[in-house]
Amino acid sequence: MSGAAQLAPVMEAGGPALAAQLRGTEERLTKVAGSRGVELGRHATATLTAGGKRLRPMLVFLCGGEGEALVSAGVAVELLHMASLVHDDVLDQAPLRRGEPTVFAAGGRGAATATGDLLFSRAFAELAAAGSEEAVAALSAASSALARGELMQRADAWSDDVSAQRYLERCELKTASLFAAACELGALLGDSRPARASLRAFGRRIGLAFQVLDDVLDVSGPSERTGKHRGTDLLDGTVTLPLIVARERDPELRGMDLRELVSEPAQAEAVCDRIAVTGALNECRERALIQVAEAKAALSGAELPAERRRALDLVADGVVERYA
Amino acid sequence: MSGAAQLAPVMEAGGPALAAQLRGTEERLTKVAGSRGVELGRHATATLTAGGKRLRPMLVFLCGGEGEALVSAGVAVELLHMASLVHDDVLDQAPLRRGEPTVFAAGGRGAATATGDLLFSRAFAELAAAGSEEAVAALSAASSALARGELMQRADAWSDDVSAQRYLERCELKTASLFAAACELGALLGDSRPARASLRAFGRRIGLAFQVLDDVLDVSGPSERTGKHRGTDLLDGTVTLPLIVARERDPELRGMDLRELVSEPAQAEAVCDRIAVTGALNECRERALIQVAEAKAALSGAELPAERRRALDLVADGVVERYA
Repeated sequence: MSGAAQLAPVMEAGGPALAAQLRGTEERLTKVAGSRGVELGRHATATLTAGGKRLRPMLVFLCGGEGEALVSAGVAVELLHMASLVHDDVLDQAPLRRGEPTVFAAGGRGAATATGDLLFSRAFAELAAAGSEEAVAALSAASSALARGELMQRADAWSDDVSAQRYLERCELKTASLFAAACELGALLGDSRPARASLRAFGRRIGLAFQVLDDVLDVSGPSERTGKHRGTDLLDGTVTLPLIVARERDPELRGMDLRELVSEPAQAEAVCDRIAVTGALNECRERALIQVAEAKAALSGAELPAERRRALDLVADGVVERYA
Repeated sequence: MSGAAQLAPVMEAGGPALAAQLRGTEERLTKVAGSRGVELGRHATATLTAGGKRLRPMLVFLCGGEGEALVSAGVAVELLHMASLVHDDVLDQAPLRRGEPTVFAAGGRGAATATGDLLFSRAFAELAAAGSEEAVAALSAASSALARGELMQRADAWSDDVSAQRYLERCELKTASLFAAACELGALLGDSRPARASLRAFGRRIGLAFQVLDDVLDVSGPSERTGKHRGTDLLDGTVTLPLIVARERDPELRGMDLRELVSEPAQAEAVCDRIAVTGALNECRERALIQVAEAKAALSGAELPAERRRALDLVADGVVERYA
């Protein structure tokens, strides 16, 4: 199922207000891409307009309700997300993202590093317009967390003793922090400030589920769906929950040195099969479903209009359906 | 003359208030280096505490006067400066900075990219504490400019037709914008808001002079003073004003392809000598002195306590003396 199709029920529940905010977000992103002369134009336009699902801005809007400041926040979280993708692609030397050449592939390492820096900067410039010190603090905390998660991932690469707890800590930093911040920005700049903690908890939980399911998909494939080989994480030395759980269950896998085991795609696929045989993928999926259930529970404590609560529940379901 | 010695007259003119603010800045920078667990600690501590001259925070304090918000702004501009240095070192694959291994050399490309991102994020986190929307907008504009300057530098690398005007535009982005923002943040968060435009103009002019003189020093040496070979810009393909002016004066130099001309340090030194013979270095120095004079003229229009104005004049002189 495509990203747009999963989110169709959310769009319906969100109504014309959500649709207008998302249109506003696209317009602003296009403007950012075009506003800074040829240098940014050339490298960032593709990235900015390649049409992600805009899941994080959607969280801002559904948590916050209406208002111009929310669009600034939605644009800011999407720019920050993109900045981190552009830098990740430099570090992974990734040729493609969403079927398009990455900034790294199109412009080289220097252009991609600077383009990422520029997107970071523009994120804060957008959010400054919302005029809230707490909002800037929330975005910079998320931005710090993304970078710390990246550092942790590099530090743990190829390691044979990453615990599930350490893995989850990394997911908190790399993924859940920005989902949580999106929900928090909605609360801070919209009409749901009293629900700030509940909404933040909701965002954090679905962020964790999102990352765990993404890591499952890297092992399970199929590659037609992900657009990349199975086991790209293994090839990068990134130790994820499926491997951690599988190592607990298969002593031989536990004793193997990942660096020796995996040096080309065919070997990575073989290790993926071996992980799947242990039943680790189902355990990971179940853990993700628990996070989604707890996300919905956190939401039930928040004072929110019924339509928006329903739309947020559907976002949580969409995170799971993406991988169903 | 060392950085500290040049700035001794400034410290004297700035008095105990400036000394206290700079101490506060060091404390906060040390705290940022230590506050984010081993990952940041290992890579960023050396960078944060390697003891630059803290010229940009000094501008914040001398422009702004007293107040806690100014220290936040001083820390923020220094963190942003460091973030850009860390990323520049990745792109230049530089082994040393200020005589210490760069983050790139110590931790590799991934760690250095993420450390730079983290320093960027912390800059905005620090500034958020100052609680001014205009201040966040000023810092993010400077941060965008730094990245755009870097993109422009990459786009123009090895080019044989970079004009002096285009070079100055790049200096505006890469260097002058952050000097200008430091002065502007002082004005916004201190006691000199009416002088905002004059102080910004002052910062911009000394930033331009600083960059031009730095580029002269790369050609003139001596390398004992700069800690690197003469002509490192040439080896990177970075076309600076000395080469642009020399090309106007020496038709043979104009016809040469930089990429063929310079592939090892000994060749770079020979091209440096050839540039010097044209008298280009003196012309560049004179252009920088004009910027410093115009900086001081901009300052004379600003309403500022006499002591602080005197200290800022001395900062402007220090920029020149660094290269005398």
